[in-house]
Amino acid sequence: MTTAVNDALVLDAAAQDLLFREARTANTFTDEPVSDEQVQAIYDLVKYAPTAFNQQPLRVVLARSTEGRARLVQHMADGNKAKTEGAPLVAILAADNEFHEELPAQLPHFPQAKDLFFSERPVRESSALLNGALQVGYFIVGVRAAGLAAGPMTGFDAEGINKEFFPEGDHSVLAVVNIGKPGEDASFARSPRLSYDEVVTTV
Amino acid sequence: MTTAVNDALVLDAAAQDLLFREARTANTFTDEPVSDEQVQAIYDLVKYAPTAFNQQPLRVVLARSTEGRARLVQHMADGNKAKTEGAPLVAILAADNEFHEELPAQLPHFPQAKDLFFSERPVRESSALLNGALQVGYFIVGVRAAGLAAGPMTGFDAEGINKEFFPEGDHSVLAVVNIGKPGEDASFARSPRLSYDEVVTTV
Repeated sequence: MTTAVNDALVLDAAAQDLLFREARTANTFTDEPVSDEQVQAIYDLVKYAPTAFNQQPLRVVLARSTEGRARLVQHMADGNKAKTEGAPLVAILAADNEFHEELPAQLPHFPQAKDLFFSERPVRESSALLNGALQVGYFIVGVRAAGLAAGPMTGFDAEGINKEFFPEGDHSVLAVVNIGKPGEDASFARSPRLSYDEVVTTV
Repeated sequence: MTTAVNDALVLDAAAQDLLFREARTANTFTDEPVSDEQVQAIYDLVKYAPTAFNQQPLRVVLARSTEGRARLVQHMADGNKAKTEGAPLVAILAADNEFHEELPAQLPHFPQAKDLFFSERPVRESSALLNGALQVGYFIVGVRAAGLAAGPMTGFDAEGINKEFFPEGDHSVLAVVNIGKPGEDASFARSPRLSYDEVVTTV
Protein backbone atom coordinates (compact mmCIF):
# COMPACT_ATOMS: atom_id res chain seq x y z
CA MET A 1 0.00 0.00 0.00
CA THR A 2 1.30 3.45 -0.79
CA THR A 3 0.92 6.40 1.49
CA ALA A 4 1.50 10.08 1.12
CA VAL A 5 4.89 10.91 2.53
CA ASN A 6 5.49 14.32 3.92
CA ASP A 7 8.56 15.97 2.42
CA ALA A 8 9.32 17.71 5.71
CA LEU A 9 10.44 14.41 7.24
CA VAL A 10 13.93 12.93 6.91
CA LEU A 11 12.83 9.41 7.88
CA ASP A 12 12.36 7.35 4.73
CA ALA A 13 8.89 6.38 3.55
CA ALA A 14 9.31 2.66 4.22
CA ALA A 15 10.29 3.36 7.84
CA GLN A 16 7.36 5.78 8.25
CA ASP A 17 5.01 3.06 7.05
CA LEU A 18 6.62 0.32 9.15
CA LEU A 19 6.52 2.27 12.40
CA PHE A 20 3.48 4.51 12.08
CA ARG A 21 1.40 4.81 8.91
CA GLU A 22 0.83 1.15 8.06
CA ALA A 23 1.44 -0.39 11.50
CA ARG A 24 -1.69 -1.48 13.32
CA THR A 25 -2.55 -2.86 16.72
CA ALA A 26 -3.14 -6.60 16.27
CA ASN A 27 -5.80 -8.61 18.08
CA THR A 28 -5.05 -11.96 16.43
CA PHE A 29 -1.71 -13.54 15.55
CA THR A 30 -0.22 -16.32 13.45
CA ASP A 31 1.64 -19.21 15.10
CA GLU A 32 5.04 -17.88 13.97
CA PRO A 33 7.17 -17.69 17.10
CA VAL A 34 8.88 -14.55 18.39
CA SER A 35 12.47 -15.36 19.33
CA ASP A 36 14.52 -14.12 22.26
CA GLU A 37 16.90 -12.68 19.66
CA GLN A 38 14.11 -10.48 18.31
CA VAL A 39 13.30 -9.16 21.78
CA GLN A 40 16.99 -8.56 22.42
CA ALA A 41 17.24 -6.59 19.18
CA ILE A 42 14.17 -4.55 20.12
CA TYR A 43 15.63 -3.69 23.52
CA ASP A 44 19.05 -2.95 22.06
CA LEU A 45 17.40 -0.36 19.81
CA VAL A 46 14.94 1.36 22.12
CA LYS A 47 17.18 1.46 25.18
CA TYR A 48 18.78 4.57 23.66
CA ALA A 49 15.62 6.66 23.68
CA PRO A 50 15.60 9.51 26.20
CA THR A 51 14.18 9.73 29.71
CA ALA A 52 14.56 12.28 32.51
CA PHE A 53 17.94 11.93 34.26
CA ASN A 54 18.56 8.85 32.10
CA GLN A 55 16.39 6.89 34.52
CA GLN A 56 15.39 3.48 33.22
CA PRO A 57 12.42 2.25 35.24
CA LEU A 58 11.10 -0.12 32.55
CA ARG A 59 11.06 -3.79 33.46
CA VAL A 60 9.86 -6.50 31.07
CA VAL A 61 8.57 -9.97 31.92
CA LEU A 62 8.11 -12.20 28.88
CA ALA A 63 5.31 -14.74 29.35
CA ARG A 64 6.63 -17.61 27.25
CA SER A 65 5.86 -20.88 29.06
CA THR A 66 2.36 -22.39 29.23
CA GLU A 67 2.42 -21.89 32.97
CA GLY A 68 3.63 -18.29 32.75
CA ARG A 69 0.93 -17.50 30.20
CA ALA A 70 -1.77 -19.00 32.42
CA ARG A 71 -0.54 -17.00 35.41
CA LEU A 72 -0.94 -13.84 33.33
CA VAL A 73 -4.24 -14.60 31.59
CA GLN A 74 -6.09 -15.01 34.89
CA HIS A 75 -5.43 -11.31 35.64
CA MET A 76 -6.45 -10.01 32.20
CA ALA A 77 -9.86 -8.45 31.61
CA ASP A 78 -12.29 -10.92 30.01
CA GLY A 79 -12.14 -9.12 26.67
CA ASN A 80 -8.35 -9.51 26.59
CA LYS A 81 -8.02 -13.15 27.67
CA ALA A 82 -8.39 -14.80 24.26
CA LYS A 83 -5.92 -12.58 22.46
CA THR A 84 -3.41 -12.86 25.29
CA GLU A 85 -3.73 -16.65 25.07
CA GLY A 86 -3.34 -16.59 21.29
CA ALA A 87 -0.27 -14.38 20.92
CA PRO A 88 3.08 -16.10 20.32
CA LEU A 89 4.69 -13.91 22.97
CA VAL A 90 3.32 -11.58 25.63
CA ALA A 91 5.37 -8.91 27.40
CA ILE A 92 4.41 -7.49 30.77
CA LEU A 93 5.80 -3.94 30.96
CA ALA A 94 6.21 -2.46 34.44
CA ALA A 95 7.90 0.48 36.12
CA ASP A 96 10.37 -0.20 38.92
CA ASN A 97 9.65 2.45 41.56
CA GLU A 98 13.10 1.82 43.00
CA PHE A 99 14.87 2.85 39.78
CA HIS A 100 16.76 5.46 41.81
CA GLU A 101 19.07 2.80 43.23
CA GLU A 102 20.63 2.45 39.77
CA LEU A 103 20.70 6.17 39.06
CA PRO A 104 24.27 6.91 40.20
CA ALA A 105 25.53 4.32 37.71
CA GLN A 106 23.20 5.52 34.95
CA LEU A 107 23.97 9.21 35.44
CA PRO A 108 27.70 9.22 36.28
CA HIS A 109 28.11 12.99 35.76
CA PHE A 110 25.43 13.79 38.34
CA PRO A 111 25.27 11.01 40.94
CA GLN A 112 23.71 13.38 43.49
CA ALA A 113 20.44 13.27 41.53
CA LYS A 114 19.44 10.11 43.36
CA ASP A 115 19.28 11.80 46.75
CA LEU A 116 18.52 15.33 45.60
CA PHE A 117 15.42 14.43 43.62
CA PHE A 118 14.32 10.90 44.36
CA SER A 119 14.53 10.32 48.11
CA GLU A 120 10.73 10.40 48.50
CA ARG A 121 8.58 7.48 47.37
CA PRO A 122 5.69 9.53 45.87
CA VAL A 123 8.14 11.50 43.71
CA ARG A 124 9.76 8.27 42.56
CA GLU A 125 6.44 6.66 41.74
CA SER A 126 5.33 9.64 39.70
CA SER A 127 8.65 9.79 37.85
CA ALA A 128 8.70 6.03 37.24
CA LEU A 129 5.18 6.22 35.83
CA LEU A 130 5.91 9.08 33.42
CA ASN A 131 9.30 7.81 32.26
CA GLY A 132 8.22 4.18 32.30
CA ALA A 133 5.31 5.13 30.02
CA LEU A 134 7.74 6.89 27.67
CA GLN A 135 9.71 3.64 27.58
CA VAL A 136 6.53 1.67 26.87
CA GLY A 137 5.94 3.94 23.87
CA TYR A 138 9.49 3.39 22.65
CA PHE A 139 9.12 -0.38 23.16
CA ILE A 140 5.97 -0.47 21.00
CA VAL A 141 7.84 1.39 18.25
CA GLY A 142 10.67 -1.13 18.67
CA VAL A 143 8.33 -4.10 18.25
CA ARG A 144 7.25 -2.60 14.93
CA ALA A 145 10.90 -1.98 13.99
CA ALA A 146 11.33 -5.76 14.25
CA GLY A 147 8.57 -6.27 11.68
CA LEU A 148 6.17 -7.48 14.33
CA ALA A 149 2.75 -6.28 15.40
CA ALA A 150 2.11 -5.08 18.93
CA GLY A 151 -1.17 -5.46 20.76
CA PRO A 152 -0.84 -3.19 23.81
CA MET A 153 -3.48 -3.61 26.54
CA THR A 154 -4.31 -1.81 29.76
CA GLY A 155 -7.36 -3.90 30.65
CA PHE A 156 -6.15 -6.08 33.54
CA ASP A 157 -6.08 -6.36 37.32
CA ALA A 158 -2.96 -4.30 37.96
CA GLU A 159 -2.65 -5.22 41.62
CA GLY A 160 -3.02 -8.88 40.75
CA ILE A 161 -0.24 -8.69 38.14
CA ASN A 162 2.03 -6.73 40.48
CA LYS A 163 1.67 -9.39 43.18
CA GLU A 164 1.90 -12.31 40.74
CA PHE A 165 4.99 -11.23 38.81
CA PHE A 166 6.72 -8.74 41.09
CA PRO A 167 6.31 -10.17 44.59
CA GLU A 168 9.54 -8.50 45.68
CA GLY A 169 10.50 -4.89 45.27
CA ASP A 170 8.10 -2.13 44.30
CA HIS A 171 6.81 -2.37 40.74
CA SER A 172 3.74 -1.02 38.93
CA VAL A 173 2.56 -2.73 35.77
CA LEU A 174 1.88 -0.18 33.00
CA ALA A 175 0.85 -2.28 30.02
CA VAL A 176 0.71 -5.82 28.68
CA VAL A 177 1.72 -6.18 25.04
CA ASN A 178 0.91 -9.11 22.75
CA ILE A 179 3.63 -9.55 20.14
CA GLY A 180 3.65 -11.51 16.88
CA LYS A 181 2.76 -11.53 13.21
CA PRO A 182 -0.81 -10.36 12.59
CA GLY A 183 -3.31 -13.18 12.01
CA GLU A 184 -6.71 -13.21 10.34
CA ASP A 185 -8.85 -10.12 10.78
CA ALA A 186 -6.14 -8.84 13.11
CA SER A 187 -7.25 -5.22 13.24
CA PHE A 188 -10.32 -3.04 13.36
CA ALA A 189 -10.77 -0.38 10.70
CA ARG A 190 -8.53 2.50 11.74
CA SER A 191 -10.34 4.96 13.97
CA PRO A 192 -10.06 8.72 13.43
CA ARG A 193 -7.28 10.89 14.78
CA LEU A 194 -7.59 14.46 16.01
CA SER A 195 -6.54 17.06 13.46
CA TYR A 196 -3.42 19.16 13.89
CA ASP A 197 -5.51 22.22 14.73
CA GLU A 198 -7.35 20.35 17.46
CA VAL A 199 -4.08 19.39 19.16
CA VAL A 200 -1.54 22.12 18.45
CA THR A 201 -1.76 25.83 19.27
CA THR A 202 0.93 28.51 19.06
CA VAL A 203 1.70 31.36 21.44
CA MET B 1 29.36 7.24 11.99
CA THR B 2 28.67 3.55 11.58
CA THR B 3 26.90 1.43 14.14
CA ALA B 4 26.30 -2.25 14.56
CA VAL B 5 22.90 -3.09 13.18
CA ASN B 6 21.05 -6.03 14.50
CA ASP B 7 19.88 -8.39 11.77
CA ALA B 8 16.76 -9.24 13.75
CA LEU B 9 15.30 -5.83 12.94
CA VAL B 10 13.41 -4.95 9.76
CA LEU B 11 13.86 -1.19 10.19
CA ASP B 12 16.76 -0.06 8.00
CA ALA B 13 20.05 0.98 9.57
CA ALA B 14 19.74 4.66 8.62
CA ALA B 15 16.37 4.88 10.33
CA GLN B 16 17.69 3.07 13.42
CA ASP B 17 20.48 5.63 13.65
CA LEU B 18 18.22 8.61 12.99
CA LEU B 19 15.64 7.68 15.61
CA PHE B 20 17.63 5.86 18.28
CA ARG B 21 21.30 4.94 17.94
CA GLU B 22 22.76 8.27 16.81
CA ALA B 23 20.01 10.58 18.05
CA ARG B 24 20.90 12.53 21.18
CA THR B 25 19.15 14.92 23.53
CA ALA B 26 20.35 18.43 22.62
CA ASN B 27 21.05 21.17 25.14
CA THR B 28 22.18 23.81 22.64
CA PHE B 29 20.80 24.64 19.20
CA THR B 30 21.71 26.51 16.03
CA ASP B 31 19.62 29.50 14.87
CA GLU B 32 18.03 27.48 12.06
CA PRO B 33 14.29 27.90 12.46
CA VAL B 34 11.80 25.06 12.87
CA SER B 35 8.82 25.64 10.60
CA ASP B 36 5.15 25.01 11.25
CA GLU B 37 5.29 22.62 8.30
CA GLN B 38 7.85 20.51 10.13
CA VAL B 39 5.68 20.30 13.24
CA GLN B 40 2.66 19.45 11.07
CA ALA B 41 4.65 16.64 9.45
CA ILE B 42 5.74 15.34 12.87
CA TYR B 43 2.17 15.28 14.13
CA ASP B 44 0.87 13.75 10.90
CA LEU B 45 3.29 10.86 11.45
CA VAL B 46 3.01 10.18 15.18
CA LYS B 47 -0.75 10.65 15.45
CA TYR B 48 -1.09 7.06 14.18
CA ALA B 49 0.74 5.48 17.13
CA PRO B 50 -1.47 3.47 19.48
CA THR B 51 -3.13 4.41 22.77
CA ALA B 52 -5.76 2.73 24.91
CA PHE B 53 -9.25 3.12 23.41
CA ASN B 54 -7.69 5.38 20.76
CA GLN B 55 -7.78 8.19 23.30
CA GLN B 56 -5.72 11.21 22.28
CA PRO B 57 -5.08 13.31 25.37
CA LEU B 58 -1.93 14.98 24.02
CA ARG B 59 -2.09 18.74 23.58
CA VAL B 60 0.80 20.79 22.24
CA VAL B 61 1.48 24.50 22.75
CA LEU B 62 4.30 25.84 20.58
CA ALA B 63 6.13 28.75 22.23
CA ARG B 64 7.16 30.72 19.16
CA SER B 65 6.76 34.44 19.92
CA THR B 66 9.14 36.38 22.18
CA GLU B 67 6.30 36.95 24.59
CA GLY B 68 5.19 33.31 24.56
CA ARG B 69 8.74 32.16 25.19
CA ALA B 70 9.12 34.56 28.14
CA ARG B 71 5.86 33.33 29.65
CA LEU B 72 7.24 29.79 29.52
CA VAL B 73 10.82 30.45 30.67
CA GLN B 74 9.68 31.99 33.96
CA HIS B 75 8.22 28.60 34.96
CA MET B 76 11.26 26.54 33.95
CA ALA B 77 13.78 25.31 36.53
CA ASP B 78 16.87 27.53 36.64
CA GLY B 79 19.00 24.86 34.97
CA ASN B 80 16.58 24.72 32.03
CA LYS B 81 16.02 28.46 31.43
CA ALA B 82 18.99 29.14 29.14
CA LYS B 83 18.40 26.19 26.83
CA THR B 84 14.68 26.93 26.65
CA GLU B 85 15.54 30.52 25.69
CA GLY B 86 18.05 29.34 23.09
CA ALA B 87 16.00 26.76 21.22
CA PRO B 88 14.44 27.81 17.90
CA LEU B 89 11.15 26.25 18.97
CA VAL B 90 9.79 24.95 22.27
CA ALA B 91 6.80 22.64 22.61
CA ILE B 92 4.77 22.35 25.79
CA LEU B 93 3.26 18.85 25.88
CA ALA B 94 0.26 18.35 28.13
CA ALA B 95 -2.49 15.82 28.75
CA ASP B 96 -6.10 16.93 28.49
CA ASN B 97 -7.90 15.24 31.38
CA GLU B 98 -11.18 15.78 29.56
CA PHE B 99 -10.12 13.69 26.56
CA HIS B 100 -13.20 11.53 27.14
CA GLU B 101 -15.45 14.16 25.58
CA GLU B 102 -13.89 13.34 22.19
CA LEU B 103 -13.89 9.59 22.73
CA PRO B 104 -17.21 8.74 21.02
CA ALA B 105 -15.87 10.37 17.82
CA GLN B 106 -12.44 8.74 18.18
CA LEU B 107 -13.80 5.28 18.93
CA PRO B 108 -16.88 5.03 16.73
CA HIS B 109 -17.27 1.25 17.14
CA PHE B 110 -17.49 1.54 20.95
CA PRO B 111 -18.93 4.94 21.89
CA GLN B 112 -20.08 3.59 25.26
CA ALA B 113 -16.44 3.56 26.43
CA LYS B 114 -16.71 7.20 27.41
CA ASP B 115 -19.32 6.57 30.09
CA LEU B 116 -18.43 2.97 30.93
CA PHE B 117 -14.78 3.68 31.75
CA PHE B 118 -14.15 7.38 32.03
CA SER B 119 -16.96 8.93 34.02
CA GLU B 120 -14.73 9.45 37.07
CA ARG B 121 -12.10 12.20 37.14
CA PRO B 122 -9.33 10.18 38.93
CA VAL B 123 -9.62 7.40 36.32
CA ARG B 124 -9.45 9.96 33.53
CA GLU B 125 -6.43 11.69 35.01
CA SER B 126 -4.57 8.42 35.40
CA SER B 127 -5.44 7.34 31.86
CA ALA B 128 -4.55 10.75 30.40
CA LEU B 129 -1.18 10.62 32.17
CA LEU B 130 -0.27 7.14 30.94
CA ASN B 131 -1.51 7.58 27.39
CA GLY B 132 -0.37 11.19 27.19
CA ALA B 133 3.13 10.01 28.19
CA LEU B 134 3.01 7.37 25.44
CA GLN B 135 2.19 10.18 23.02
CA VAL B 136 5.08 12.28 24.38
CA GLY B 137 7.39 9.35 23.60
CA TYR B 138 6.00 9.08 20.08
CA PHE B 139 6.34 12.86 19.61
CA ILE B 140 10.03 12.74 20.57
CA VAL B 141 10.57 9.97 18.02
CA GLY B 142 8.71 12.12 15.49
CA VAL B 143 10.96 15.14 16.12
CA ARG B 144 13.91 12.91 15.28
CA ALA B 145 12.11 11.60 12.20
CA ALA B 146 12.10 15.21 10.97
CA GLY B 147 15.88 15.32 11.27
CA LEU B 148 15.70 17.53 14.35
CA ALA B 149 17.04 17.12 17.85
CA ALA B 150 14.70 17.05 20.84
CA GLY B 151 15.60 18.34 24.28
CA PRO B 152 12.85 16.99 26.54
CA MET B 153 12.63 18.47 30.06
CA THR B 154 10.60 17.77 33.16
CA GLY B 155 12.23 20.40 35.37
CA PHE B 156 9.58 23.14 35.65
CA ASP B 157 6.78 24.44 37.86
CA ALA B 158 3.98 22.25 36.54
CA GLU B 159 1.20 24.10 38.32
CA GLY B 160 2.56 27.40 37.02
CA ILE B 161 2.59 26.14 33.43
CA ASN B 162 -0.89 24.64 33.75
CA LYS B 163 -2.29 27.98 34.93
CA GLU B 164 -0.29 30.03 32.44
CA PHE B 165 -1.05 28.08 29.29
CA PHE B 166 -4.19 26.13 30.12
CA PRO B 167 -6.32 28.53 32.17
CA GLU B 168 -9.49 26.82 30.94
CA GLY B 169 -10.29 23.13 30.99
CA ASP B 170 -8.32 20.55 32.92
CA HIS B 171 -4.81 19.97 31.61
CA SER B 172 -1.60 18.55 33.13
CA VAL B 173 1.74 19.45 31.56
CA LEU B 174 3.88 16.34 31.07
CA ALA B 175 7.05 17.63 29.40
CA VAL B 176 8.56 20.66 27.68
CA VAL B 177 10.61 19.85 24.59
CA ASN B 178 13.21 22.09 22.96
CA ILE B 179 13.39 21.45 19.22
CA GLY B 180 16.00 22.40 16.64
CA LYS B 181 19.30 21.53 15.02
CA PRO B 182 21.97 20.68 17.61
CA GLY B 183 24.43 23.51 18.30
CA GLU B 184 27.94 23.52 19.75
CA ASP B 185 28.64 20.98 22.46
CA ALA B 186 24.96 20.07 22.26
CA SER B 187 25.13 16.79 24.16
CA PHE B 188 26.82 15.14 27.11
CA ALA B 189 28.74 11.92 26.54
CA ARG B 190 26.13 9.18 26.35
CA SER B 191 25.36 7.70 29.75
CA PRO B 192 25.09 3.93 30.26
CA ARG B 193 21.98 1.88 29.65
CA LEU B 194 20.83 -1.14 31.62
CA SER B 195 21.68 -4.45 30.01
CA TYR B 196 19.01 -6.73 28.57
CA ASP B 197 19.41 -9.13 31.48
CA GLU B 198 18.85 -6.36 34.01
CA VAL B 199 15.56 -5.40 32.37
CA VAL B 200 14.04 -8.52 30.83
CA THR B 201 13.11 -11.79 32.53
CA THR B 202 11.14 -14.75 31.18
CA VAL B 203 8.50 -16.88 32.85
